[in-house]
Formats: sequence, C-alpha cells, structure tokens
Amino acid sequence: MLRLYYAPHTCALASHIALEQAGADYEAVRVDFGRNEQRAPEYLALNPKGRVPALVTERGVLTETPAILAFVCQSHPEAKLAPLDEPFAFAQVQSFNSYLCSTVHVAHAHRMRGYRWADDPAAIAAMQRKVPQSVGECFALIERELLAGPWVMGDAYTICDPYLFTLSQWLEADGVDLAKLPRVSEHRARMAEQPVVRRVVAQELA
Amino acid sequence: MLRLYYAPHTCALASHIALEQAGADYEAVRVDFGRNEQRAPEYLALNPKGRVPALVTERGVLTETPAILAFVCQSHPEAKLAPLDEPFAFAQVQSFNSYLCSTVHVAHAHRMRGYRWADDPAAIAAMQRKVPQSVGECFALIERELLAGPWVMGDAYTICDPYLFTLSQWLEADGVDLAKLPRVSEHRARMAEQPVVRRVVAQELA
Repeated sequence: MLRLYYAPHTCALASHIALEQAGADYEAVRVDFGRNEQRAPEYLALNPKGRVPALVTERGVLTETPAILAFVCQSHPEAKLAPLDEPFAFAQVQSFNSYLCSTVHVAHAHRMRGYRWADDPAAIAAMQRKVPQSVGECFALIERELLAGPWVMGDAYTICDPYLFTLSQWLEADGVDLAKLPRVSEHRARMAEQPVVRRVVAQELA
Repeated sequence: MLRLYYAPHTCALASHIALEQAGADYEAVRVDFGRNEQRAPEYLALNPKGRVPALVTERGVLTETPAILAFVCQSHPEAKLAPLDEPFAFAQVQSFNSYLCSTVHVAHAHRMRGYRWADDPAAIAAMQRKVPQSVGECFALIERELLAGPWVMGDAYTICDPYLFTLSQWLEADGVDLAKLPRVSEHRARMAEQPVVRRVVAQELA
C-alpha cells in the first residue's frame, strides 16, 4: 500500500486528489506543520527535504509533486490521467506541471516562506508586497496561453488539473484579482464540484 | 528537425547536451540575451514565457527543462537516457530534475534575478547575500542524499546528469565552497571530460 504524507493547505493536495482519482491503494498520513512535524527526526529520515508531499512506495520514497503525479498515472494506466504513450503530449503535461512547481508555486512561496531567500525582515516584507503581481502574472499567462479548456490540456482530464486546482486555492490570499481570471476561476469551480475532489478536500480539512 | 533555442550560461545547456547525446536531429539557435532577444515579439510568439530553453518540434513548442529532457529520452528510446519502462525509477529521475528546477535553480536565481520577487533594491541585495547559503544547502543535500554515484542515479547515466552538471557550473559564482562538495565536484569533472559535453560547451561559448 502507498502512503502519502500531506499537510492541509499545501501542494500535497494535488497528489492526494490524483491518488484518489486513480483508485490507488493508499493511506493519507497528516504531517502536523503546527507542531513542526516536518522537521522531526522521524520525518526527516523518510524525507530529508522536510516538506510535503512524500509518497512511500514499496520501492522507496518519492518527493516533488510533478514526479509523484507522473508516477501515479504511470503506475495506474487504466485511470488514463495522462497521455502516457505520446511523448509530445506527455511532455506538454510535464511542462505545465513543471511551470507550476518552479515558477507559480515559487512566486506564491515568497508570501509565507521569504526566509528561504533572505534574512532581512525588510526584504521578506518586500517579497510579500510583490506576490500579488508575481503570482498574478503567472496566472495571467495560464489564463491566456496554457489553459486550453475545459481542462488544462483540452478535452482530456489529466494530472495537470488537480495541480492547477491546488495552486488556484491560494489566489485570494495571494491578493490576485480573480475577476481577471475567468477561465481559471471556471476551472477551479468545475474541479471543486467533482465528488472525488470534494471528498479529498473535506478529508484534509477535517 | 528539432530546434533548440538556448543562451550560453543558462539551464538550456542541459537540454542541449541531452539532444546531442540522444543523437537527435536538431539545430541549436542562440538567443542573444545581451540584446534582450528573449523579450522580442518574434521570440515571445514562439515562447510567451520569454525564457530559454524552448524546443520547437513538429507538433509544437516545449518549454521547461524537466519536460524537454523527458521528451528527448522518450522520443529517442534507443539512447537509453532514462529508465522509461519502470514507473518508480522514472519517477526518481523526475523527482531529481524537479528538485533542480524548483528549488536549486530558484535559489540560484536570487543572485541575478531578484527583481522577479521584490522591487526594493535593498531587498534584492539581501537576496543576493543569502545565495551562498541557500544554494549551498541545496547542494549539500544533493551531495549527502541524492547523488548515488558515479552518476546521479547510480551506475546508469540519465538525463539527471547533464542537468546537475549545468547547475553545478554556477557554484563558484554563487559563492558555494566546492571543498565541501567532493562528490558533486567529481561528478562535474567526469561530465566535463565527456566528448559530447566538451563539444556542446565549446559550441555554446564560441
């Protein structure tokens, strides 16, 4: 059985939804960020990065959302969560997810985790001030260029969809004007209606 | 024929090396950052992100290094640049490359591209000061946990290797002490000796 280590309000939600949608045999294990469990020796032994998500498999531990998402669909091909047999189409999926992890999530992280990149409190405050703009520009690109509709890749639902849904949860708190993102907003609403998504979100927030 | 848009001293080097190692039918096209060509309308029409690398294929344009690297090995399976038929092993490759793009490259980018995340010059200077530490911690994790040796994934050379090599080019300028990274240093030296790598590096710097 797979074990997904997650915390509420983190990007682990994407992997959690994907596992549920794939019908995977898995258990979700909450890491209590309030008690700093992600930095406890037991957790660091599992994931030296001290972050979530981490997916424990029978062959070892996987980290990094794009890798976990690709693993979930490759190990559950019957769920058809990505175009596994078409290198170009699969690369488009990977490209979108890579943009989310390396640019969109990073822009967002400057609101709460500025200490990763500067020590000066004034610098950390300056980073926070720019988040509405930097995250806003990322989502403007997604709105304009990357979200084919109705799903990210077009007619086919893929592992891009739970990941975009996860990051779009943070838009209001990031100070981004959703009125400028009608297609992203519609995508988020469509995702939120899915029974699987409702179930996973309810479980994480319980 | 594939067309790779690159600029010297950027992460496009990883894709460039992988294409050469795969024996791909490709052309490398230099984007002149000195003349800001990455922001010219012709380039933005190709890649709205205004960055490199971008790989033009007969089916469309791909961006983001981890996606391009996976595409190169999936479309050239005979080159055996990744364990394509083993979901867990392939996910390990993806996980490593995802860490490089979303954490290591991002830490590095705070030295030259701090304006992405703050407007205040003092904040940008504060980011620069932390780069030796933040990049150093990333590479300490690679040294200690992620680089199996002799190649990143162990005995098999994969697309993780040109990507690690590319980011390890920047260590001195990032102010990281290489003496603390003997295994990373050895990997970098071993990569630099390969005829394919020498050829690509010489071409980019010509």
